[in-house]
Amino acid sequence: MKITFLPQALTGEAEEGETILQAAIKAGASIDGNCAGMGTCGKCKVKVLSGNKEVCRDPHRKLSEQEIEQGVRLACCQPVSDGMVVEIPDSETTAARKKRLICLPEGFVRNAAVKKIFLSVPKASLLDQRSDEVRIREVLDKEELTFSGSVLRHMPKVLKESRDVTLTIRNNRVLYIEAGDKAKENYGVAVDIGTTTVVVLLWNLETGELVQAESGTNPQGAYGADVISRITYAMEQVENLETLHQAILQYINKAVEKFQKEAEIDPEHIYQYVVVGNTTMSHLFLGVDPSQLAASPFAPVFTGSVQIKAEELGLKANKNAVVYLAANIAGHVGSDITAGIITTDLMDCNKGHLFIDIGTNGEIVLTGKGRAVACSTAAGPAFEGSSVKQGMRAAGGAIERVELSEEEVQIAVIGGGKPIGICGSGIIDALGEMLRFGIVDKSGRLLSGEKLAKKGVCEKLAERVRPSEKGSEFVLYFSPDGKSDVVLSQKDVREVQLAKAAISAGISILMKEAGISADDLERISIAGAFGSYIRNTSAIHVGLLPPIEEDKIVSLGNSAGIGASMMLLSAACLAASERAAGNIEHIELAAREDFQEEYMAAMMF
Amino acid sequence: MKITFLPQALTGEAEEGETILQAAIKAGASIDGNCAGMGTCGKCKVKVLSGNKEVCRDPHRKLSEQEIEQGVRLACCQPVSDGMVVEIPDSETTAARKKRLICLPEGFVRNAAVKKIFLSVPKASLLDQRSDEVRIREVLDKEELTFSGSVLRHMPKVLKESRDVTLTIRNNRVLYIEAGDKAKENYGVAVDIGTTTVVVLLWNLETGELVQAESGTNPQGAYGADVISRITYAMEQVENLETLHQAILQYINKAVEKFQKEAEIDPEHIYQYVVVGNTTMSHLFLGVDPSQLAASPFAPVFTGSVQIKAEELGLKANKNAVVYLAANIAGHVGSDITAGIITTDLMDCNKGHLFIDIGTNGEIVLTGKGRAVACSTAAGPAFEGSSVKQGMRAAGGAIERVELSEEEVQIAVIGGGKPIGICGSGIIDALGEMLRFGIVDKSGRLLSGEKLAKKGVCEKLAERVRPSEKGSEFVLYFSPDGKSDVVLSQKDVREVQLAKAAISAGISILMKEAGISADDLERISIAGAFGSYIRNTSAIHVGLLPPIEEDKIVSLGNSAGIGASMMLLSAACLAASERAAGNIEHIELAAREDFQEEYMAAMMF
Repeated sequence: MKITFLPQALTGEAEEGETILQAAIKAGASIDGNCAGMGTCGKCKVKVLSGNKEVCRDPHRKLSEQEIEQGVRLACCQPVSDGMVVEIPDSETTAARKKRLICLPEGFVRNAAVKKIFLSVPKASLLDQRSDEVRIREVLDKEELTFSGSVLRHMPKVLKESRDVTLTIRNNRVLYIEAGDKAKENYGVAVDIGTTTVVVLLWNLETGELVQAESGTNPQGAYGADVISRITYAMEQVENLETLHQAILQYINKAVEKFQKEAEIDPEHIYQYVVVGNTTMSHLFLGVDPSQLAASPFAPVFTGSVQIKAEELGLKANKNAVVYLAANIAGHVGSDITAGIITTDLMDCNKGHLFIDIGTNGEIVLTGKGRAVACSTAAGPAFEGSSVKQGMRAAGGAIERVELSEEEVQIAVIGGGKPIGICGSGIIDALGEMLRFGIVDKSGRLLSGEKLAKKGVCEKLAERVRPSEKGSEFVLYFSPDGKSDVVLSQKDVREVQLAKAAISAGISILMKEAGISADDLERISIAGAFGSYIRNTSAIHVGLLPPIEEDKIVSLGNSAGIGASMMLLSAACLAASERAAGNIEHIELAAREDFQEEYMAAMMF
Repeated sequence: MKITFLPQALTGEAEEGETILQAAIKAGASIDGNCAGMGTCGKCKVKVLSGNKEVCRDPHRKLSEQEIEQGVRLACCQPVSDGMVVEIPDSETTAARKKRLICLPEGFVRNAAVKKIFLSVPKASLLDQRSDEVRIREVLDKEELTFSGSVLRHMPKVLKESRDVTLTIRNNRVLYIEAGDKAKENYGVAVDIGTTTVVVLLWNLETGELVQAESGTNPQGAYGADVISRITYAMEQVENLETLHQAILQYINKAVEKFQKEAEIDPEHIYQYVVVGNTTMSHLFLGVDPSQLAASPFAPVFTGSVQIKAEELGLKANKNAVVYLAANIAGHVGSDITAGIITTDLMDCNKGHLFIDIGTNGEIVLTGKGRAVACSTAAGPAFEGSSVKQGMRAAGGAIERVELSEEEVQIAVIGGGKPIGICGSGIIDALGEMLRFGIVDKSGRLLSGEKLAKKGVCEKLAERVRPSEKGSEFVLYFSPDGKSDVVLSQKDVREVQLAKAAISAGISILMKEAGISADDLERISIAGAFGSYIRNTSAIHVGLLPPIEEDKIVSLGNSAGIGASMMLLSAACLAASERAAGNIEHIELAAREDFQEEYMAAMMF
C-alpha cells in the first residue's frame, strides 16, 4: 500500500493493518505523540485527505465531532489504506515547539515592572476617617502611589465586596483593583514583529511561566513582502498607512484572543506589552509614517522607546495597560537588535564581541575597547533562501546541513524525509563543503566535472556537477524519479557570494572603526533561526564570519523574542535596553568611502 | 414718564427726551458702558421688553440684526417712552466682572508645568542619520524627553511643512507639535466646582492673562440642591452617578465652547485643566461613587490629587491634555479649601492664622505652633440666605450692609436700587448692629418695641420692631406701598444664632486642639463672596470670629478659583497644594466629646 504525507510530500510503503503512525515513521515523516499508541494523549492527530476515513479507533474520545467531520484522525489508531493521502499539521506551529524556541538566559532574574499585591484595607472609623486611597498607601508604605481614574471609580464597589483586595501596580501607579487574592493572574505579552514572521508570547509575570506562544506570517506581507515595498505602499495613499498599522494590531489581538480561549485568561489581567521589531515595523506598529526610511539619508521619525496605553492602540488588555515599544538604534537597526543585545553580555563594551542577525538585511553590532558600533548591510534574500533557485525558509523539507566526503553527500532535512529545497544554513554548509573539496574555487567559480577530474577531485563528487541552462550545477540530492533533484547552481553560488561579501564588508568596516581584529574577539553571537541551524565551521570557511575558535560562536535562537520577554519580566532589562540603544554608535556604510573597496575584497571566498 | 428696570424691578421717573441710561442712573440701576454716551463702546446694551422699540440711534452699528430683532438697544442712544420696561443683562454675568473676581496675589511667580517651545529642528544627512526625535532632544538639551504616540504620528507631516516647530511639553513629555511659532497659544483651564456655582477660567499659560471667565449654576442642582441630596440621588440607581458626572463635564465643555468662539482659540491649544471643589464635587467630577460621604464615618474613596487625561473624561482639549484634580483634605474639607490655602501664607504653620470658608458648611483651617488643623461644621444655609425668610444670595437687589444710628437705618444694596432681600453679609451686619443697639439681647431675643422703649433705645429704632405671625420682626427697609418691606425676624435671628454657634464652636475646638488663643492669631482669612461683603466688626460683634484687630482680617475673594488658577500657572503652587493637603490634620467634630459643650456655649452672642 502506498501512502503520501503532506506538506512534505513524503511517500512510503505500508502493510495492511499498519497504522498511519507506523507508516509515517517508516517514511521519515515526523508526527507528535507521547502515549506510545494508546490513544490517550491525542497529540498525533492528522487529517486524512483521501483514503479510508472511517473512524476505526478513538478509545479515549480525543476527536471532537467537528474534527471527525473534517477528516481528522488519530495517527496511532487509524489503519492505512492504499493510496491514502495524509496531512500532518505543521509541527512548527504546535504550541510546544513555539515555546521551546524561547529560552531565557541562565541567571536571568525576574523583577517585572508590573506587580500585583494582595492586601487587606482597614475599615474607616470616626477616629480614622481617612480615605480608602490614603489607607492603601499606608498599608503598602508607599507615599508616592497614585491611582488612575478608572481604579478610583471601581474601588468603592470592590471594597464593598471585600476589604481583601489585589492591586496591580506599575511604577507607583495603581492600574487595577480586584476583590480577593488575584496576585497570580498577572500577565504580559511580548511581541517580536519581524517583516516576515510575528511572534506573540504570553507570560505570567508573577510565576515567570511562558503560558502561550503564537507565531505566524506578518499580515502586512499582503501589502509588500519586504520593508521597502511596504513603505512604498504606505506612501501611495494616506489610508494605506492605517491599513498596515491596523493589520499588525489585529494580528496581535487575534493571538491574544486565542490565548484568552486556550489559557482561559481574562484580558483585564494583561497589564503590559513589550514590542520589538525593526525600525520600519516599529513605525508601522505605532502608525507613524515610515517614508523617511525609504530615501537617503534614511533618518527615522523616532528611535527612542515609546510608551503608550494599550487602549489608545486598541490592543486587548486591561484599560490601564501600557505598551512599551522598545528603543531602536537607527533607521535600519531596530529594537529587535536592541532586544537581541540584552540577551548577551554585549553591554560590556570592553569585551570583543560580534553580534550578527542575518536576514534580508544583515544587522551587525561590534563591541570592544570601550566602544559599541553597529551597521546594517543589504545582504539580499540569499540567506533566507528566496534568491536561490531551490531556496526555502528553514521549515520542514529544507536541507539544513550538508556534509561531503570522498564517497558521498550527506544531507540533513528539517523534519526528516525527502528534501524539497534548501534553507540558508544548508546553503552555507553546502558551499563551505564545496570550497573544501575544491568544487568551487576562491573566486566563486563552480568548476565543471572535467576540470574537477583534472584537479583530482574524487570521481563520486565530480559526477554530481552537471551542466544546466545557466552554467553548472551541483546535485545535493538525486530524487528517485530524477524530477525533483535538489541542486546548487553557479548562479546560486554568485548570489550567496554577493550576500556574504556585504556582511563580511560590514564586519570589516566595524572592526576597522573600533580598532578591533579577529584576535580580539572573545565571542560571536548569531541571532535568529539562521544562527540555530548554521554550522560554524562552514560559516567561517565561506568567509561569512571572521576566523575564530568554533566554541566562541554562540547561537542565540529567537533573541528578539527572548529580549522582549526579558524586558517584560524585568524592569532592569528594560532599563538596560534603553542604555544599550543609546550607547551604540551607528555607522552608515553608504557614507563610508572605504565600503566599496571592502566589499570587493570580501567577494573572494 | 415711568420706566421699570428688570430684573431688580426698579422704577423711576424720566422726562421726555432722556435716554434709558439717564433714567437708569436716576433710578439707581447700574448699566455698563465706557464711552460716555457716544455709542462707540456698545457695552450698555439692554433689552426693551415693552415701550417704544424703534431704533433711534446706533451710530457705530453696535447692534446686530438679531439683536435688533430681539429688542436689544443701546441704553445711551435710546430715548425713554412712558411705561417702558427694560431688562438689564445680569451684570454679575458680564465677562469683565467675572474676571475682576480673580486676582492673583501680589508677588505670584508664574512657572506653568506646560511649556511651549519654538525651535528649529536640523535636517538629517548621511553623516547624521539620527531620528528627528533624537535631534529635538539634542536641540533642547533634554535627554529625558519622551514623546506621546500621537505626537510621533503627527511629526513627519509637521516637519515636512516646516523645520521650525513649536513643541508643547509637560513634565518632559511632548504633548503636541505644530509648524511655526505657536508658543503664545498655550492655554489652560481652572475650574472651581461649587455645590451651587461653577466657575470656569481660561488662562493663557504663556502670558499669564485671564482670557475668559464663565460662571453659572451647577447643573447638578437639578438633581439636588445640596451635597447630601445629590449623594442620595446618586445612590438611588446606578445610572444617576453617571448623570451627575456627565452634567458637570458638559457644563465645563459648554463654557470651553463659548471661550473657543469668543476668544477664537483652538481647543487643541488647551493642555491642562486644574479642577477644585469640595470632596463630593471631586468624586462626582471623576464619576466616583460618593455614597461613603453620606454616612458615618464619612471616609471618602480618595483624597489625594488625581491626574487623568482630558480625553478619558471627554473634556474639550488637546488629545494629550491632562486634568489635575487637586488634593482634598478630608470628606468634608475639599480641594476648594486646599486651593484657598495656597492663596495665603497659611503654609507656614508657625504663624497663628485662621482660614474660614463659610457656606452651607463652614470649613475652618487653623495653623500655629507648628501644626495645621482643620474641621468642617454644618453651619446650615443661614449664611447663604436660604433659611432666612427674606434671605437671598449675594446678587443684585440684596442688602449687603446695614448701619444703624439713633435716627435711621442705612442699607447698601448690591447693584443699587430698591432692596428685594438680604444676603449673608447683610444678615451678619444687621444682627451686629441690632446687638450694638440692644435690639437683640445676648441670648438672641428680639426685644419688643415696648421693652426697647423701657430700656431707652431711641424711638426711631424701637418703632421698627413690630409683631408678626411668628414673634417680632425688625424692619430694615420700608417699601413705599408697604407690601415689600425687608425685615429680619426672631426666627431669622435664631437661624443665624445656630449657624454662628456651629462655626464658633468649630473654631474653639481647633484652637483648643492646637493650643492657640485669639491673642496668638496674626491673621484671619475669609474665603468666598461672603468674605468680600462681610463687615469685620460685625462678624466679631456677632461672635462669628474671635476678637482680633480689624486690620488682621483679610477677604480672599474667590480663593478656590484663584488657588486653582495658581496651580495651573505654577508647578510650584501645584506641589505646594499637595503638601498643604497632606500636612493638615482633620479633626472630626462629631468624634469630640467636648463639641456639644462648646456649641451650647457659642450660642450666646
